[in-house]
Amino acid sequence: MAEFGLNERELRALIAPLRAGAAGSSSLSDAAELFARAAWTGIAEPGDRGAGLLVTALGAATALGALIDNWPTARIAEAVDPAARAGRDALAHEISAALARWRPRTNSAAAVRALQSAARIGCRLAVPGDAEWPPGVDDLGVHAPLALWWRGREESMPAMARSIALVGARAATGYGEHVAMEASAGLVDRGFAIVSGAAYGIDGMVHRSALASDGVTVAFLAGGLDRFYPSGHDALLTRIVETGAVISELPCGAAPTRWRFLQRNRLIATSSQATVVLEAGHRSGSLNTAGHAAAAGRPLGAVPGPVTSPASAGCHRLLRDFDARCVTNAAEMAELVDVYADAAGEIDASRAGGADAANPDQLRVLDALSTRSGREVNDIAVRSGLSPLAVITVLGALELDGSAGNGERGWMRRV
Amino acid sequence: MAEFGLNERELRALIAPLRAGAAGSSSLSDAAELFARAAWTGIAEPGDRGAGLLVTALGAATALGALIDNWPTARIAEAVDPAARAGRDALAHEISAALARWRPRTNSAAAVRALQSAARIGCRLAVPGDAEWPPGVDDLGVHAPLALWWRGREESMPAMARSIALVGARAATGYGEHVAMEASAGLVDRGFAIVSGAAYGIDGMVHRSALASDGVTVAFLAGGLDRFYPSGHDALLTRIVETGAVISELPCGAAPTRWRFLQRNRLIATSSQATVVLEAGHRSGSLNTAGHAAAAGRPLGAVPGPVTSPASAGCHRLLRDFDARCVTNAAEMAELVDVYADAAGEIDASRAGGADAANPDQLRVLDALSTRSGREVNDIAVRSGLSPLAVITVLGALELDGSAGNGERGWMRRV
Repeated sequence: MAEFGLNERELRALIAPLRAGAAGSSSLSDAAELFARAAWTGIAEPGDRGAGLLVTALGAATALGALIDNWPTARIAEAVDPAARAGRDALAHEISAALARWRPRTNSAAAVRALQSAARIGCRLAVPGDAEWPPGVDDLGVHAPLALWWRGREESMPAMARSIALVGARAATGYGEHVAMEASAGLVDRGFAIVSGAAYGIDGMVHRSALASDGVTVAFLAGGLDRFYPSGHDALLTRIVETGAVISELPCGAAPTRWRFLQRNRLIATSSQATVVLEAGHRSGSLNTAGHAAAAGRPLGAVPGPVTSPASAGCHRLLRDFDARCVTNAAEMAELVDVYADAAGEIDASRAGGADAANPDQLRVLDALSTRSGREVNDIAVRSGLSPLAVITVLGALELDGSAGNGERGWMRRV
Repeated sequence: MAEFGLNERELRALIAPLRAGAAGSSSLSDAAELFARAAWTGIAEPGDRGAGLLVTALGAATALGALIDNWPTARIAEAVDPAARAGRDALAHEISAALARWRPRTNSAAAVRALQSAARIGCRLAVPGDAEWPPGVDDLGVHAPLALWWRGREESMPAMARSIALVGARAATGYGEHVAMEASAGLVDRGFAIVSGAAYGIDGMVHRSALASDGVTVAFLAGGLDRFYPSGHDALLTRIVETGAVISELPCGAAPTRWRFLQRNRLIATSSQATVVLEAGHRSGSLNTAGHAAAAGRPLGAVPGPVTSPASAGCHRLLRDFDARCVTNAAEMAELVDVYADAAGEIDASRAGGADAANPDQLRVLDALSTRSGREVNDIAVRSGLSPLAVITVLGALELDGSAGNGERGWMRRV
């Protein structure tokens, strides 16, 4: 199959510099598949469920071919779900909408340009199965990234196998920055890599402190790696590239958008073994990261602060409403991984057994529900990463088997 | 039966002033029984299990008679437990030890003096069944107080039916005092009476703030009410007497001791509907109050603070290790009672059903165990208020029925 009309030699030439040193072991290692994965990162938005379904079912190259060659929707739907498990009409409708989103971006020149830009700045491509691939992100299922762009030291990528995400508000206080500095240095001392988002405030402080402690630190960005954001952290990110890694799901040339920031947060939450929110206002974006961590069954910690400080209100909300664990120093943060990860695994397994373990959407919706407080469909959609329509369908099934119920205060999990 | 050789007229004369206005409705209202309850408060230390057993089985007057008339241990043991349910030998041993403790204090003159002192200062006596009796303390079972001495306004005693205990460290910071002031005033505004221990620091601040808000506040002391402790709070306690109540389990003339402070804490925790620790160091006495609240199934809240402040370390420990709920303002504290008390009741009921609901000792030991962290026998003894020997016996039974287990880290609850 011709990818955008490129022959295999041309594909190899484009791909080779992006795979320098890649310890790939997967079936994806052929150039067409790698190129297609790279191209998909410029076509589908991060977390696009349709792209996840297509690439999982057909492989990236065939899926891209289906898009370029204008396969009829029905043919794609049949290829994605031969047994029509999920209801062919709904699936066809979803694919039809997705094709409409993707077509305007199915652009050969843009894809090639992104790959060339990447090669120029030493940016590389990781795909599932690579030693550089953080396996935790695969827990996102159909919302997992299709490929990751990264710059930095090769060894820093597998270091995420023992890492903690330290996140927090841009509007940090002196207290929050002090706590961030101590936490990051203390976790580096305990052998953890530090994952964060390179934002101003808390994020920047944890990266800096990890660097100062000669630790490995990894920053996930929401746009292409050819232009660092925020620009005021250009020097910091350049230093991170020297000893750690800067990673994005988006190709060179892609601008960071609000949606991409939110989706970037799911990578921070799942590439690490635990997430700790150090300081966050009541509506801080780091609560979104925390929600992703909880939804993925990762231990979640929150650092308390003065109840008189609005900059800690989000942390207190996590302690109250999201069963976050109260952590006050690096030792307690390390415990999240070293002690509680096992217990969390057990809980997850038992919960999965209770519902239909074979149905990841049900699991995601169950994870998005609380036994304490009722939630609206839109809220559940945001937490689960499913569409409101899909959430309603799944809730119906969960209500039938008694594991969820709709009360005065909204939908709740029944235990 | 002659109480210390006093006839009924003399008894009535001693008791009458202590019962002015008491809306007693119980069978305890005869003078001999009331006198005996009062006398027991000077004979047995607060929380004395032996006294609880005897008074429950025989009534206070007969139990006092048994002590005065030197009944043989075997006769008392048979009277306490005719069916020899708990093992007659162990019980006889326990009673024998208790008699040895009580005899030196079985002193007619001291008992009469305490009653006369009480009458002089307007101190009154409440017994179970009185409108002035806080029914929550009966949850302490054989460790419940036999009578309570109190000074203040009659209406303030039933006000404990809707009350929250606000406690904290003597070594409070400006932050802690600010939080204490806001919490107390906010809960008064929401119709709660404020229960605390009149200590320096946090306790004093919550009483003062309740008074300033024209609220009802109740202070439990660890010694007799003829001499307020701490003496620096004499003026504060005098003001509390004018609009609220000051209560003690100990008769006039009794000095506060370390043991009595710890036992006093169980009254603070059980006379109120929820306990909130506002600021507490890692080893603060308020953690003892929190432990009593949790053991009695009362909702427990803790106010977080800066992790850099040792004065908040105890609160963070409660959030981490004791499933305390993170509360940051008066509204969230009120929720502990208004929302979560129901849920806690359900959990308690189901747990009681799981084990032998007829066996309060098993329930107390189960309440003292955690599903997360292992605990040693001595620790469980402190939490449950049972002796280490009794704890070992009960743990054996719980292990047999599978509700507790002994692992590497100590005893844990199996759910």
